[in-house]
Amino acid sequence: MPTLNQIITGIKPLDSEAKVQAQKQLDSLIKPIGSLGKLEQIAVQLAGINGSIGNELPKKCIVIMCADNGIWEEGVSACPQTLTAMQTLNFTKGICGINVLSRHAGADLCIVDIGINGTVDHPQILNRKVRYGTANMVKGPAMTREEAVQALETGIAMIEELAGAGYRLLGTGEMGIANTSTSSAVLMALSGCDATVAVGKGAGLTEEAYQQKQTAINRALAVNCPDPKDPLDVVAKVGGLDLAGLAGCFLGAAYYRFPIVIDGFISAVAALLACKLQPLSRDFMIPSHHSAEPGFSLVMQELGLEPLLNLGMRLGEGTGCPLAFNLVEAAVKVTREMATFETALLEDDFLVDIRQ
Amino acid sequence: MPTLNQIITGIKPLDSEAKVQAQKQLDSLIKPIGSLGKLEQIAVQLAGINGSIGNELPKKCIVIMCADNGIWEEGVSACPQTLTAMQTLNFTKGICGINVLSRHAGADLCIVDIGINGTVDHPQILNRKVRYGTANMVKGPAMTREEAVQALETGIAMIEELAGAGYRLLGTGEMGIANTSTSSAVLMALSGCDATVAVGKGAGLTEEAYQQKQTAINRALAVNCPDPKDPLDVVAKVGGLDLAGLAGCFLGAAYYRFPIVIDGFISAVAALLACKLQPLSRDFMIPSHHSAEPGFSLVMQELGLEPLLNLGMRLGEGTGCPLAFNLVEAAVKVTREMATFETALLEDDFLVDIRQ
Repeated sequence: MPTLNQIITGIKPLDSEAKVQAQKQLDSLIKPIGSLGKLEQIAVQLAGINGSIGNELPKKCIVIMCADNGIWEEGVSACPQTLTAMQTLNFTKGICGINVLSRHAGADLCIVDIGINGTVDHPQILNRKVRYGTANMVKGPAMTREEAVQALETGIAMIEELAGAGYRLLGTGEMGIANTSTSSAVLMALSGCDATVAVGKGAGLTEEAYQQKQTAINRALAVNCPDPKDPLDVVAKVGGLDLAGLAGCFLGAAYYRFPIVIDGFISAVAALLACKLQPLSRDFMIPSHHSAEPGFSLVMQELGLEPLLNLGMRLGEGTGCPLAFNLVEAAVKVTREMATFETALLEDDFLVDIRQ
Repeated sequence: MPTLNQIITGIKPLDSEAKVQAQKQLDSLIKPIGSLGKLEQIAVQLAGINGSIGNELPKKCIVIMCADNGIWEEGVSACPQTLTAMQTLNFTKGICGINVLSRHAGADLCIVDIGINGTVDHPQILNRKVRYGTANMVKGPAMTREEAVQALETGIAMIEELAGAGYRLLGTGEMGIANTSTSSAVLMALSGCDATVAVGKGAGLTEEAYQQKQTAINRALAVNCPDPKDPLDVVAKVGGLDLAGLAGCFLGAAYYRFPIVIDGFISAVAALLACKLQPLSRDFMIPSHHSAEPGFSLVMQELGLEPLLNLGMRLGEGTGCPLAFNLVEAAVKVTREMATFETALLEDDFLVDIRQ
């Protein structure tokens, strides 16, 4: 596998000629020009990614990066840390939100232990552990720069594997208690925004715990002074292994040229991180839903993207992806199955008696 | 079939006990409380409609009301009037946007000629013609009050038929050149809003034609003086047969107790009309996407609803419905297939070695 740097420098822009052809074809279909809105934009984007129009999307998969975050010690989450491992195991049982929605969409899951603070031994969980959870970033860097690079390369390698297995539409999910805290910290470091904008109540904090969460994140940023111009520095010091792994997925998708769907807040911050490393990677991303986490709007603004779905969801796990997959497939079918004005007018069974 | 008045007075509220039970069940699932947002709200709504929780939704259908509008004469549309008949026939060929998206969702179509200005003779098109298009409402009422009632009752009868055929999830679509004009006029009459808020460029008008459209609609309202307190007067004088038929569908769905999805602007105005006749009908409605027509936001505000999808679509035909069906089905599957915390914790294969 190429190194992180080779991946970053090897990402090519979308094929602009294929995009033009796709828009032309869409404009020839029996509908007012542009009337299918974002379905058309997705179809054009897919053409730009594939270099040709009307491609099928045979297999789809959601990568779930699972990891623990040391900042959990500061009381930033309403859940015990063991829930990360427990829920990761639950993913293998098919009983979680992401399982139900993925089955509904006909999508597979790729469950990755990239840094759970414990041993989860299960044939369906890929052991790609970089370390047993990050350190508490309130007291120092969450991880070393080398570990951050390793996590990013783990994400890239996952995409390479999935490409080899024939997957052509990808999604991103995560499980990691306290990962809204790391995501908020990374967002604040990258965008310069305030904790009141970036920090939310996660899976359900009291007002007091919410204040504590803001304080902890502010402290982590003050202690580590991450360099906003150096995204690797940011994710190493105040990020998480799941975040870094997902950022790697976004870069990998762009390098191997596959559309990749963003889930909620954490996944979107990982997408932003990838864009800071290589702005071209943005063109391979498809946003799914508008997360209820307050910082989400800012991330979308920074990315220049607008979600397709507005469901007030904040579960994570990748749950927005299978819902968006259905829309991506709809976009593909529109380009493949709708008739053009030309062919529709050629039909000879058009017999109408106009009275007026 | 009961009369329009019997339907309106026969609509019962949602089952509040079933709603409470559904929310309780959702709160027991392995996810933070409320984290599946609108999917949970839909599941609760379905329970309220059905009177029990976790129901399957075996068959789904979109009713497409097709009709012509006399105001077309005023140059309010960029299309020839014959396009209504032509596109209605195209629906039978499976080549239009709604065909592609319905196949994608596994939904059937019910194509109804409720007032096309011509004869479309096809076994797949139900002939329920009230009249050959409405009159030009700039010169007088679009139709008589009796015709409006007949159109509403046609919609109700369609729902009764579909219920008999085993359909349990319904959608609403339309085809009718110039029906954004009638919808804007009905919205203005019902809400008291201005043409600048309610009138859009439809399927693609020039700036000049757009001014002409506003003038024509203002004139129609001035000539007919519809009574905002009398929704039947409004739809008869400045509405359309498709609009009235769809309003009947919404009332019928509420009476026979089925969830019914709103498509775009025209469909939403029909939903508003139904709510003005019987406010309880609102609780059986599910909005789909945020139409790009400018008046759409106001209709949603009046209805107190918020669309699930934000796709910038403005095709009509019912195209938002199959995309929303996928979300409704996802909501049903969440309630049926996710595990509860209780059962998940009972599993004995939960072995995690916590290092810290």
